[in-house]
Amino acid sequence: MKVVKFGGSSLSTGEQVKKVFNIVTSDPARKIVVVSAPGKRFSSDIKVTDLLIECAEKLLNDEDANDIILSILERYENISNELSLSSDVIAGIKKDLLDVLNGDKSNSAKYVESVKATGEDNHAKLIAAFFNAQGVEANYVNPKEAGLFVTDELGNAQVLPESYELLYNLRNQAGIIIFPGFFGYNKAGEVVTFSRSGSDITGSILANGVKAEVYENFTDVDAVYSVNPNIVSQPKEIRELTYREMRELSYAGFSVFHDEALIPAYRAGIPVNVKNTNNPNAPGTRIVNERSNTNGPVIGIASDKGFCSIYVSKYLMNREIGFGSKLLRILEENGLSYEHTPSGIDDISIVLRQNQMSYEVEQNIISRIKDELAADEVKVEHNLALIMIVGEGMRHNVGTTARASKALADAKVNIEMINQGSSEVSMMFGIKEEDERRAVQALYHEFFVAVAVVN
Amino acid sequence: MKVVKFGGSSLSTGEQVKKVFNIVTSDPARKIVVVSAPGKRFSSDIKVTDLLIECAEKLLNDEDANDIILSILERYENISNELSLSSDVIAGIKKDLLDVLNGDKSNSAKYVESVKATGEDNHAKLIAAFFNAQGVEANYVNPKEAGLFVTDELGNAQVLPESYELLYNLRNQAGIIIFPGFFGYNKAGEVVTFSRSGSDITGSILANGVKAEVYENFTDVDAVYSVNPNIVSQPKEIRELTYREMRELSYAGFSVFHDEALIPAYRAGIPVNVKNTNNPNAPGTRIVNERSNTNGPVIGIASDKGFCSIYVSKYLMNREIGFGSKLLRILEENGLSYEHTPSGIDDISIVLRQNQMSYEVEQNIISRIKDELAADEVKVEHNLALIMIVGEGMRHNVGTTARASKALADAKVNIEMINQGSSEVSMMFGIKEEDERRAVQALYHEFFVAVAVVN
Repeated sequence: MKVVKFGGSSLSTGEQVKKVFNIVTSDPARKIVVVSAPGKRFSSDIKVTDLLIECAEKLLNDEDANDIILSILERYENISNELSLSSDVIAGIKKDLLDVLNGDKSNSAKYVESVKATGEDNHAKLIAAFFNAQGVEANYVNPKEAGLFVTDELGNAQVLPESYELLYNLRNQAGIIIFPGFFGYNKAGEVVTFSRSGSDITGSILANGVKAEVYENFTDVDAVYSVNPNIVSQPKEIRELTYREMRELSYAGFSVFHDEALIPAYRAGIPVNVKNTNNPNAPGTRIVNERSNTNGPVIGIASDKGFCSIYVSKYLMNREIGFGSKLLRILEENGLSYEHTPSGIDDISIVLRQNQMSYEVEQNIISRIKDELAADEVKVEHNLALIMIVGEGMRHNVGTTARASKALADAKVNIEMINQGSSEVSMMFGIKEEDERRAVQALYHEFFVAVAVVN
Repeated sequence: MKVVKFGGSSLSTGEQVKKVFNIVTSDPARKIVVVSAPGKRFSSDIKVTDLLIECAEKLLNDEDANDIILSILERYENISNELSLSSDVIAGIKKDLLDVLNGDKSNSAKYVESVKATGEDNHAKLIAAFFNAQGVEANYVNPKEAGLFVTDELGNAQVLPESYELLYNLRNQAGIIIFPGFFGYNKAGEVVTFSRSGSDITGSILANGVKAEVYENFTDVDAVYSVNPNIVSQPKEIRELTYREMRELSYAGFSVFHDEALIPAYRAGIPVNVKNTNNPNAPGTRIVNERSNTNGPVIGIASDKGFCSIYVSKYLMNREIGFGSKLLRILEENGLSYEHTPSGIDDISIVLRQNQMSYEVEQNIISRIKDELAADEVKVEHNLALIMIVGEGMRHNVGTTARASKALADAKVNIEMINQGSSEVSMMFGIKEEDERRAVQALYHEFFVAVAVVN
């Protein structure tokens, strides 16, 4: 049994829904289909979810929302017409939407949650109707009815453990299940949504619940690439990568996947197959627990800008038990999360995303570190980029560091910092932002193009 | 004005004391001479300080100590005879020693302190007598009289800030000052010693107090070497290095200098010149604030064994604000100090000296990390060596990492971890202990022997 999830752009038009139908019905194992709300048809288009949020906010402010409501209904209508569905389908969607919009507004956050969720919910009903119109038995299943229960964290729901056992019963249901993504229900029976891109999460939870053989995640790219295509043109596609590799890559600039979404599938050891709705015969990228085939130490290179480092030095810091945790607590008290803490004997740097830290917070932190920790020197360096070289087993490959640092030196890139030694699947280089493209290109050339081997 | 310090082996015999006399009188700027207790004359010899400690402990236990007392006095007598000093000198030393040995034993730790300090104190008197016998005006100066006041921490005295101003007056004293190293006085007028090798500390404090132009530290090696001579034979001598470089080198295996000793001189910006009593015309090694001449990015390579790493992984660790400081607090609560904390996205390693951690402590830490932090995996790797490559400005030298990691790869050394990015003067490699010699030799060859340059 396979769980298949389609993103918003894969369901944005009738044409796209037909592709989805063909994909699902081409493989009898594709039993559970998780759907998103209609996404963008072209780059300047507005997603239905965004229209719903705007609509809910207008109504909460007692503003006129008729135009937006019409725009939303029109999106479903266009798809329904393209698919030649009976007018009952749109009538049902319209009634459901208006019922929710006219619902209880006493708790505005909860109101927005229920309005947002209609995007997926109504689209699931529409798609189930289309499947049935084609003579394929398909049933819309509501998350409450299926037992997808979540915590009360609005916009950031966490699945409750008991859901998995309830969801297992979906295996016994006849026909294809069309399941709306993005939301579950709390114990009080109210809608609570997952974080954005939450349909990925729904699919992952269902895959775990029904113990699927694979979780197929259909999106609009053929595969996960070995490097950002905006930096290196036509980069190598990755056929198979491990969860750990995926997580390290998604950390720095790989946005194919919402990494939190992987957890339920990861915990159940279910492989994830990222595929392209518009090119379903391409093999896509499989995310697995362990992979067998390796074509060298490195599987992907990711990079991201916008980091800074806070450098702290103090003579004999090394002898002071507690210096490190006191320093980190000052950051935590300012709500800052940090990425790395490379250290020398008497100095330590903290690398963090600089958009977390306003000028005032930065000044406050500098003076607290100077005062409370009696540091000799504190300085902040802005505009750093981090590059991750990722590959399972890389750590035990003598010479990977040498190849990477030689490639960077040859490209005249100064390495501001290196972090290697904890993760077994990645090595991180910190460089200046202006060197990012050159550095990534040099590393890609070294590990994916050149056949140079360090003896 | 120069402050000159001589170690125990430089003052272990009459012959050695004559060398010291010649060194001091050859330069009229050498005004303040800090002396140690008589040290070893040959490798199996016992230092006077060690005899004094044994003697004090025997007397505290009401055991017979006459043999040891005679051994101690014999050391001074031999030196005095070699130098043809009047018998009054030894008579004075004997009286002083017996007075102290017969002193108040009610606080045994304080009693040991006062007995230990006689080693330096009496030797300073003997040496002053020798200088005067040669017709050179020299005066023994007692630390209390000079104003060297310290905290109450027995065996680990810290200088009190007001001492510096009092010590400045030594500039006005006539003749050469012979000053006993290793101890000061607390506010109650009791002897408190510095940590072991404390004569280095006395010299450094006096250099700061009198604002010396240089602090000359005479020992028994020609210079600080660029690498451990037990690993590479006849390594290059270092002519000049900065305080920061010295500190990084002394951290991992360079024991020439007691690094705490440098602080007072460092704070006053006074250069330290390490020289050889047995070869005083050799230039030695100068430790300075900033150095001008550079012969490449690396000035020294140090290494040390006996480290371990605690690896902790947890899916989405990266998102958890506070994970790092909670982890470090568990270590601190076990009294452990750590060296480095390299981190990946969802994992962090803590590198520490493994002799701090018994099997029980290790098990306790592992289970606390698993329980309190809900870590997915915790594992400890033992028997690691750390190698420091040290050099001022190395950080901004494109290609140093590439040269170092290529040299290690060529020597088939797997790099377990790299820490670079905080210290501007060092780069650290973690490797397996069994690879240490091969790794250090390969790095020495790369940076000090080969003329290979990465383009």
